[in-house]
Amino acid sequence: MLYHVRMDVRIPHDLDPGVRADTIAREKAYAQDLQRAGKWRHLWRITGEYANVSVFDVESHDELHEILSGLPLFPYMDVDVTPLAKHPSAIA
Amino acid sequence: MLYHVRMDVRIPHDLDPGVRADTIAREKAYAQDLQRAGKWRHLWRITGEYANVSVFDVESHDELHEILSGLPLFPYMDVDVTPLAKHPSAIA
Amino acid sequence: MLYHVRMDVRIPHDLDPGVRADTIAREKAYAQDLQRAGKWRHLWRITGEYANVSVFDVESHDELHEILSGLPLFPYMDVDVTPLAKHPSAIA
Amino acid sequence: MLYHVRMDVRIPHDLDPGVRADTIAREKAYAQDLQRAGKWRHLWRITGEYANVSVFDVESHDELHEILSGLPLFPYMDVDVTPLAKHPSAIA
Amino acid sequence: MLYHVRMDVRIPHDLDPGVRADTIAREKAYAQDLQRAGKWRHLWRITGEYANVSVFDVESHDELHEILSGLPLFPYMDVDVTPLAKHPSAIA
Amino acid sequence: MLYHVRMDVRIPHDLDPGVRADTIAREKAYAQDLQRAGKWRHLWRITGEYANVSVFDVESHDELHEILSGLPLFPYMDVDVTPLAKHPSAIA
Amino acid sequence: MLYHVRMDVRIPHDLDPGVRADTIAREKAYAQDLQRAGKWRHLWRITGEYANVSVFDVESHDELHEILSGLPLFPYMDVDVTPLAKHPSAIA
Amino acid sequence: MLYHVRMDVRIPHDLDPGVRADTIAREKAYAQDLQRAGKWRHLWRITGEYANVSVFDVESHDELHEILSGLPLFPYMDVDVTPLAKHPSAIA
Amino acid sequence: MLYHVRMDVRIPHDLDPGVRADTIAREKAYAQDLQRAGKWRHLWRITGEYANVSVFDVESHDELHEILSGLPLFPYMDVDVTPLAKHPSAIA
Amino acid sequence: MLYHVRMDVRIPHDLDPGVRADTIAREKAYAQDLQRAGKWRHLWRITGEYANVSVFDVESHDELHEILSGLPLFPYMDVDVTPLAKHPSAIA
Repeated sequence: MLYHVRMDVRIPHDLDPGVRADTIAREKAYAQDLQRAGKWRHLWRITGEYANVSVFDVESHDELHEILSGLPLFPYMDVDVTPLAKHPSAIA
Repeated sequence: MLYHVRMDVRIPHDLDPGVRADTIAREKAYAQDLQRAGKWRHLWRITGEYANVSVFDVESHDELHEILSGLPLFPYMDVDVTPLAKHPSAIA
Repeated sequence: MLYHVRMDVRIPHDLDPGVRADTIAREKAYAQDLQRAGKWRHLWRITGEYANVSVFDVESHDELHEILSGLPLFPYMDVDVTPLAKHPSAIA
Repeated sequence: MLYHVRMDVRIPHDLDPGVRADTIAREKAYAQDLQRAGKWRHLWRITGEYANVSVFDVESHDELHEILSGLPLFPYMDVDVTPLAKHPSAIA
Repeated sequence: MLYHVRMDVRIPHDLDPGVRADTIAREKAYAQDLQRAGKWRHLWRITGEYANVSVFDVESHDELHEILSGLPLFPYMDVDVTPLAKHPSAIA
Repeated sequence: MLYHVRMDVRIPHDLDPGVRADTIAREKAYAQDLQRAGKWRHLWRITGEYANVSVFDVESHDELHEILSGLPLFPYMDVDVTPLAKHPSAIA
Repeated sequence: MLYHVRMDVRIPHDLDPGVRADTIAREKAYAQDLQRAGKWRHLWRITGEYANVSVFDVESHDELHEILSGLPLFPYMDVDVTPLAKHPSAIA
Repeated sequence: MLYHVRMDVRIPHDLDPGVRADTIAREKAYAQDLQRAGKWRHLWRITGEYANVSVFDVESHDELHEILSGLPLFPYMDVDVTPLAKHPSAIA
Repeated sequence: MLYHVRMDVRIPHDLDPGVRADTIAREKAYAQDLQRAGKWRHLWRITGEYANVSVFDVESHDELHEILSGLPLFPYMDVDVTPLAKHPSAIA
Repeated sequence: MLYHVRMDVRIPHDLDPGVRADTIAREKAYAQDLQRAGKWRHLWRITGEYANVSVFDVESHDELHEILSGLPLFPYMDVDVTPLAKHPSAIA
């Protein structure tokens, strides 16, 4: 099933720079693993913002929550999830 | 270039039923033509709402505006456009 | 899977009274059939409002959308869907 | 009587890690005791967020406030309470 | 138990004048009966608005909903209910 | 004259614990003095929130502002004031 | 006492033109009478909007509500009232 | 002086088609006259919406209000005006 | 020309007390100088809030911005500016 | 293509003064380079706020994102991007 997810990242300005760099590096690896596994189907940058729009393809709400709450940047994110259904005018 | 578009449809309840049915039929044909042309890349229903999330792939803002303002349901829609950039963690 | 759904009903004051009464009667039958089928697990009135909070237990986003968009009052509702995951502190 | 409660947790990033871990552990025990006592009837995670939707069954507003303000995470939560009435279409 | 209720009245401008006058007259009688019965404890006009702030003292959410949904102006109102608990600094 | 006041308290989590405890103690004494003086007519807790709804009966806007800005917790509060007029349906 | 009032006028487009013209003419006379009486101290147009910002100087909330609810355009207005106190840095 | 203006057009769906067409034609002529006169310096379409962002260069708030309230579509517009000052980093 | 300005002051609780006191003292002197100069025409306290509503009478947007950005409390303020035009019903 | 961008700057009050001054100086140079290159076509101060409205003229969403995310003040900004299309009433 498909889920539309918007993530807004707000890292506190006084976070330790080493922690920050490490967290961002782990976030990238984590995101790429999930893309390769076919779970994280789309990942786009919202132009001008430290934010993304994504589409996930997973088995259940629980699987999605496990993925999202495991994001290294999760403690610094606002996340908004919207379940997507098939549109009657969509082809293929 | 990619654009994220959300459309919320609000057809007035006192619209003539014939006009309504005709408009919806033309909307469907219009949407499918653009999907076949590769312009309307994704079209998903927001679960539980008369609304969709779409991704368009067009040459310019002007082309996108021409497409959206030509939608048969455009007079009854709230439309929100977000330009999408490449995400540094996206693969492929 | 569980979905939290809030529905706010806004019937236009100039809707034909016969249409209104018939729609509300069909809504009630529809809601009770789904409760008996185990799909519509909880249905509560929000105190003081023509609105409800519900919990649905269905197989997929598509099934939920089919149910919600088939509600006789759907054209007069604002609907908001939130997917629910298991809480780590929940027992049983 | 039933109350719908949404809780959004926002723990400050610079909270002492020991205090954080202890608070979360006490929160879990507290929530499970109240579930066993039949006061905290439902507890669901909002998918993708550090938040929950709950339903409480208590005797009075005062009892609910005592429960909620006693949550170990209460100082770091936004809480929203909605009283629930019986819905005329609800069965059983 | 006490409930804080805000009611905003929005009567459609094209409502039949006779219906309007009759509804407002019935609303007044209804409100005064409930005040005399001790259910509607406070009723204040919000200065400059067609709106009121009220405090109700009733046995349950169900009783409050029955009262509010029975208001002759209910179809033209936005209603917001907040349950009130005892304040630790309140005297008497 | 009557004023409806809502106060939301947001004490910073890193405030010195001694300052916090002292401020809350002084707040309570201050609130009770004003209640005894008949100025602070009602004080209710909003269920589930560190917030209250109050009704003040004072001579003027200036007197109300002096009272509110003198609250020991004032620096940590969001305050919203609404002037209340007599309602035509209110009895006595 | 002084009150800051913002009024946004939203006349329905299908209001009878004669009623509209008459209402606007009566509104103007009403506003000018109150200005001459010293009650309506300031009246400014918000640039680009069918709206005004005003300052009233009246004896009580009740007097203000009587004035505002008597405005010929009152049924078509959103009104927001803010009580103004003396500022400690204001001279004279 | 420069003013940033956003205009959102919301023409009622039941407006007489002849009135609609005539109003839109007059709007276009009016807008082009002001552009030629150097008063309406920029006029851009917001992509996907029946709305524009404009910059006006006029002598005073009064002149701007006269221009905007004279727009043939003014009765069907939401207008938001923001005064623009010189930016210290702007060149020439 | 006249401008309506609302200022909401939010001084961080951990600002150095000496800096705070000095800033507030300078703010007062600055505000009184501008009132004496006829630039800051009205200054009212919003009852119950650390906020004011003001009216300025200056030559241009640039002059207003210079004044506002020079306020000693400017770094801790939310400021909202609305240009005011002459109202057709205003006398004198 | 043209993009309308609003930037609101919120520098934390406890940022090191040397870092602050250096960041602001680099921001100015960066903004002026882009203006000279014809990419940053307009830059206006929003009167009374630490914010600007800008218009960029770039080749793609990616180019705009690269520019904006490279702003020295980007970590302290809220940025909102709106793609601008040609308006049918615009001349030249």
